[in-house]
Amino acid sequence: MTADAATRPVTVLGLGLMGSALARAFLRAGHPTTVWNRSAAKAEALAAEGAQVAGSVAGAVAASPLVVVCVSDYHAVRELLGPIEGFEEGRTFVNLTSGTSREARELAAWGGGAYVDGAILAVPSGIGAAETPILYSGAADAFEEHADTLRVLGGAAAFLGADHGLASLHDVAVLSLMWGTLNGFLQGAAVLGAAGVDAASFAPLAAISANTVAGWLGGYAEQIDSGAYPGDDAALDTHLAAMEHLIDESEAVGLDASFPKAIKQLADRAVAAGRSKDSYAVLVEELRKR
Amino acid sequence: MTADAATRPVTVLGLGLMGSALARAFLRAGHPTTVWNRSAAKAEALAAEGAQVAGSVAGAVAASPLVVVCVSDYHAVRELLGPIEGFEEGRTFVNLTSGTSREARELAAWGGGAYVDGAILAVPSGIGAAETPILYSGAADAFEEHADTLRVLGGAAAFLGADHGLASLHDVAVLSLMWGTLNGFLQGAAVLGAAGVDAASFAPLAAISANTVAGWLGGYAEQIDSGAYPGDDAALDTHLAAMEHLIDESEAVGLDASFPKAIKQLADRAVAAGRSKDSYAVLVEELRKR
Ligand SMILES: NC(=O)c1ccc[n+]([C@@H]2O[C@H](COP(=O)([O-])OP(=O)(O)OC[C@H]3O[C@@H](n4cnc5c(N)ncnc54)[C@H](OP(=O)(O)O)[C@@H]3O)[C@@H](O)[C@H]2O)c1
Ligand SMILES: NC(=O)c1ccc[n+]([C@@H]2O[C@H](COP(=O)([O-])OP(=O)(O)OC[C@H]3O[C@@H](n4cnc5c(N)ncnc54)[C@H](OP(=O)(O)O)[C@@H]3O)[C@@H](O)[C@H]2O)c1
Repeated sequence: MTADAATRPVTVLGLGLMGSALARAFLRAGHPTTVWNRSAAKAEALAAEGAQVAGSVAGAVAASPLVVVCVSDYHAVRELLGPIEGFEEGRTFVNLTSGTSREARELAAWGGGAYVDGAILAVPSGIGAAETPILYSGAADAFEEHADTLRVLGGAAAFLGADHGLASLHDVAVLSLMWGTLNGFLQGAAVLGAAGVDAASFAPLAAISANTVAGWLGGYAEQIDSGAYPGDDAALDTHLAAMEHLIDESEAVGLDASFPKAIKQLADRAVAAGRSKDSYAVLVEELRKR
Repeated sequence: MTADAATRPVTVLGLGLMGSALARAFLRAGHPTTVWNRSAAKAEALAAEGAQVAGSVAGAVAASPLVVVCVSDYHAVRELLGPIEGFEEGRTFVNLTSGTSREARELAAWGGGAYVDGAILAVPSGIGAAETPILYSGAADAFEEHADTLRVLGGAAAFLGADHGLASLHDVAVLSLMWGTLNGFLQGAAVLGAAGVDAASFAPLAAISANTVAGWLGGYAEQIDSGAYPGDDAALDTHLAAMEHLIDESEAVGLDASFPKAIKQLADRAVAAGRSKDSYAVLVEELRKR
């Protein structure tokens, strides 16, 4: 951070769970921070912490060269930006609202000032930490100009390229892994819970396993990129047999088994396609054969 | 390990990818190791490494007080143990074949010598490492007697209780998390791949995310055990909106979206049940409402 970086004014539009955390991180870092929220009540707590509360979106945008937007969805972004016409010249808009790559590209086409799309890979309590990843794509110069300020929100900021859609694409890819892990955990916890094992005693083992699987991803990624899937460690048919066990255990105690069934269905198709001795990563090829 | 532990003879029945790794770990640790496999060819490499190759299951069982079984499934276990009648007295059978809790309990009821059911939470290349978790349940005294020897296979051995089904239940619970993570990763890699981003550049971010999610499991476990799911960080409806994005991005590039759809379906049901402001962990309650 340059010596005067913390004196740069910033504006935050949207003060939900995430927007409030963003504004708070800027305030903590000493940035003059202007905030606006559709329903005024959410701005009150931040005013008490030193934020300037703007009476309108236009006023909030006028207050700072960097405008961070974080609301429910792109529909809300367009609604709140409605009163101003295009991104104002000389301002950088960083939109940390979740959406699709198409929505990000379309909003970028609105034109005017610089537009950077972003995606936060963290929960609000992670905002402000050095290791928190926030992804950005779009206007590269504008990102560079404000990179130090943006690193206040998450130290592990990464600029992915000029295509405004890249941040959203990486976002859903990471969320995909996150939901997969969580649904897998919940299914496991439910199976064990039905046998009287509480989730707290499963959690440490589950966490170790998640970390172990994290260590495999680089190897599987190489297989995906090369298109060769040697099943040296565990073959797909071994996985498939065990998937049946998870479905059995779930159904035996009256649990919904749609999640393991969706997983097994894909593996079934890959085995039917002759990939039974390949590694788990070969399933990526089935995904491409809708 | 006691001074003479490494001199204790062990037998391994089944020499597939996993059984071979088990036999190899015993050999490396200096245990006199007898092996048997249905198709004899797989025993040859191990013979060259110092294993005794038995001509029959009965001969292999006679050679050691500890008999480790690792074949495809419980059907195979019963087929290979057919020639001997019940677990032989004075022997401990440790079955590391994957199966359901019911299969483990039924096999335990076969009677005779001591039966310990087990589950390996690792791939073959992880066998022999200090941090490799292997779960055991069933005959507690027999496990204790051979615990030092069994730790040769995986240092993080855990005995879960006298119910023979516990190892299998924990196994499928961990596998559930593992498949969920991997399918989530593959879906994300496929979405990014279609946009020209290779899996190798996604993998580091994915690994960080998997580790981050691992850190949340303890908190979610507390919510599950208490039955209260405060959505302080991210509410279920925020997740739900983003799930739609993953489905959109997948379908926009022609990918199979059945995995994110199965995830969204559960979240939809929870929101319909009025849980939109609860945390993600509330989905466990939907699983229980088949
Ligand atoms: N929470 C997380 O863990 C997390 C993590 C990563 C990304 N995100 C993303 O961050 C964004 C915000 O999430 P959140 O958790 O802060 O959600 P939230 O707590 O539900 O807040 C939603 C915000 O959007 C505003 N809003 C909605 N519709 C609007 C409209 N038409 N015009 C103006 N403002 C509108 C709301 O204003 P009112 O107060 O007036 O309703 C509120 O400030 C979402 O895109 C989410 O996916 C969240
Ligand atoms: N590989 C892994 O990463 C992994 C991880 C955790 C747990 N496991 C579990 O470990 C077990 C073995 O897996 P693996 O990877 O070693 O599988 P594998 O390479 O396919 O080996 C299967 C073994 O089972 C034997 N077998 C099958 N049917 C038989 C029968 N009717 N009678 C006698 N032997 C029979 C095979 O003998 P032949 O050589 O004669 O066919 C072979 O030795 C499975 O339950 C698996 O779920 C594996």
